Amino acid sequence: MIPVNAYAAQSSTTPLAPFNFDRRDVGPHDVQVEILYCGVCHSDIHQVKDEWGGSLYPMVPGHEIVGKVVAVGNHVKKFKVGDTAGVGVLVDSCRVCKHCMQDLENYCVEGMTPTYNGKERDGKTLAQGGYSTQIVVDERYVLHVSDKLDLKAVAPLLCAGITTYSPLRYTGVTKGMKVGVIGLGGLGHMGLKFAASFGAEVSLLSTSKSKEADAKRLGAHNFILTKDPEQMKQYANYFDVILDTVSANHEYETYLDLLALNGKLIVVGLPPEASKLSAFKLLNNRRSIIGSMIGGMKETQEMLDYCAEHNIVADVEMINIDYINEAYERMIKNDVKYRFVIDIASLKK
Amino acid sequence: MIPVNAYAAQSSTTPLAPFNFDRRDVGPHDVQVEILYCGVCHSDIHQVKDEWGGSLYPMVPGHEIVGKVVAVGNHVKKFKVGDTAGVGVLVDSCRVCKHCMQDLENYCVEGMTPTYNGKERDGKTLAQGGYSTQIVVDERYVLHVSDKLDLKAVAPLLCAGITTYSPLRYTGVTKGMKVGVIGLGGLGHMGLKFAASFGAEVSLLSTSKSKEADAKRLGAHNFILTKDPEQMKQYANYFDVILDTVSANHEYETYLDLLALNGKLIVVGLPPEASKLSAFKLLNNRRSIIGSMIGGMKETQEMLDYCAEHNIVADVEMINIDYINEAYERMIKNDVKYRFVIDIASLKK
Repeated sequence: MIPVNAYAAQSSTTPLAPFNFDRRDVGPHDVQVEILYCGVCHSDIHQVKDEWGGSLYPMVPGHEIVGKVVAVGNHVKKFKVGDTAGVGVLVDSCRVCKHCMQDLENYCVEGMTPTYNGKERDGKTLAQGGYSTQIVVDERYVLHVSDKLDLKAVAPLLCAGITTYSPLRYTGVTKGMKVGVIGLGGLGHMGLKFAASFGAEVSLLSTSKSKEADAKRLGAHNFILTKDPEQMKQYANYFDVILDTVSANHEYETYLDLLALNGKLIVVGLPPEASKLSAFKLLNNRRSIIGSMIGGMKETQEMLDYCAEHNIVADVEMINIDYINEAYERMIKNDVKYRFVIDIASLKK
Repeated sequence: MIPVNAYAAQSSTTPLAPFNFDRRDVGPHDVQVEILYCGVCHSDIHQVKDEWGGSLYPMVPGHEIVGKVVAVGNHVKKFKVGDTAGVGVLVDSCRVCKHCMQDLENYCVEGMTPTYNGKERDGKTLAQGGYSTQIVVDERYVLHVSDKLDLKAVAPLLCAGITTYSPLRYTGVTKGMKVGVIGLGGLGHMGLKFAASFGAEVSLLSTSKSKEADAKRLGAHNFILTKDPEQMKQYANYFDVILDTVSANHEYETYLDLLALNGKLIVVGLPPEASKLSAFKLLNNRRSIIGSMIGGMKETQEMLDYCAEHNIVADVEMINIDYINEAYERMIKNDVKYRFVIDIASLKK
């Protein structure tokens, strides 16, 4: 077994604190990654605090992992020691269902194995995430990361990146399309970057005027203050695609009016409470609402390769692990531009 | 001017009664159709009773019209006297917006001119529908109807037909796909026929076991009693497309669980009250909810041609015009198999 330093939550009400546990030995198909950086996703907070229900403790969060390969099993083909590697939101799946067979392991019929807050496929071992020094994962679920990019800023691509990249691709965002992004946080800022990179005319929709300058720096062509009815009216029937990254409770209908013919509202956030939906707004302009959840392994690799080619990374604020509880407090207040990333060197001391 | 016998509502609270008015003379681009049959759509009732708001009176309802061309303007190219013709839900639109230019006049940016309960493009004349002996329409909004089919049973294709045909095409329903249809009424029974004709495996979802035999006669392979949690569970994650034809208030979420990967819930009914929608059910399996409203002129013609080729018509119950108020009462109780059609000969006496 491989001893690991980590930070864990012991319950939904206790702060994260130092924790030691063992990873499994490297199996024939496994890759051992020494973690360099781990992004801090808002879903880490939801799960640590058990806001979605069913949380498992002790919980080592973290699913935006970048590191170096330090060992490989004797059947491993894709990786060698010294490679730079990434691990995202899932570390396993059934591998044989119709969804896994079409590279959509994120929608595995049996349910994917999450990187943390779930059980491995033995049904017993708790999966533990990236707020830790080492991780051991089957090579099928490990990604190649280019050293051309700033690795600290690559980490958030493993969740925030793929979560926004995948639905923008699924809805066919391309040159000349009009794309709106609701919310400028970890997901929203990646949504702006990708949509602009795909050639779309991009608008940030926000409740806060203070986001305008940053939105434009990140690729937005327009800024829409959603509290201003005049601005909202000006953009009625305007967008081909709107990417809704907000996970606080809100009404989808507010944004439906902004969709043009065949327009699509993509939902990637998970507000705890249901929204209202009236048929009239959907029938008008043949609008859709589409849900999307991260992405499969193949598309995640494609996204990482695309980012390397187009020099796209997240905007990050580096922290040491002992700052994590304060970081959570600040994230809840939306006070981060735009992703905290843990320097895992701070766990090795 | 052309004198016309009709039935009209004078207010939201009075029954339909005999009414005489004049149609415009046949202009250079107009076609005059002597109406033979007019289907009775549930939206006739909604509008007569002003249930959607903004109704205009006197109102001659009816937008499922089949008849014979009795006069054409001197610039008319597509029709000649003696042709069999249809008129559906719209009789005009701006013709120059980007939606009209792509044959989606039903989503005209300025708003289509409805066959009744709206104003013609002069902004003054009340458009009046098919519970009448004659109608005069620009040829761009008149459809060719094959004499191979039973014309009485063609009439409902002009609304119930295109309303179900269009979204099944838009969502790519084809051989081998699994399609569910919610509700067996005027729309639902056409949905079954089209989905089966496109080669899909078709299921009727209904609250009433009594619909099973008819559903199967109309093309359904399976019947799902939606009140039975066991049956609903059996079909979890099953359907590629579900066509929701129900216009009474209901919860869309009930059906989202039945959608497979990339599954689409198509909404064509217009319940007066909003439904609830939670993100979790949408993100799972990358599901969508899509609205769809009738269809454009080109696709309506395509649908009529398809029906002639595949011998598809509605199941109808013929009535005389003086039965119309009783027919409405029965429709509200869902007591019709599956569309009342008015024999307009009964208006000529």
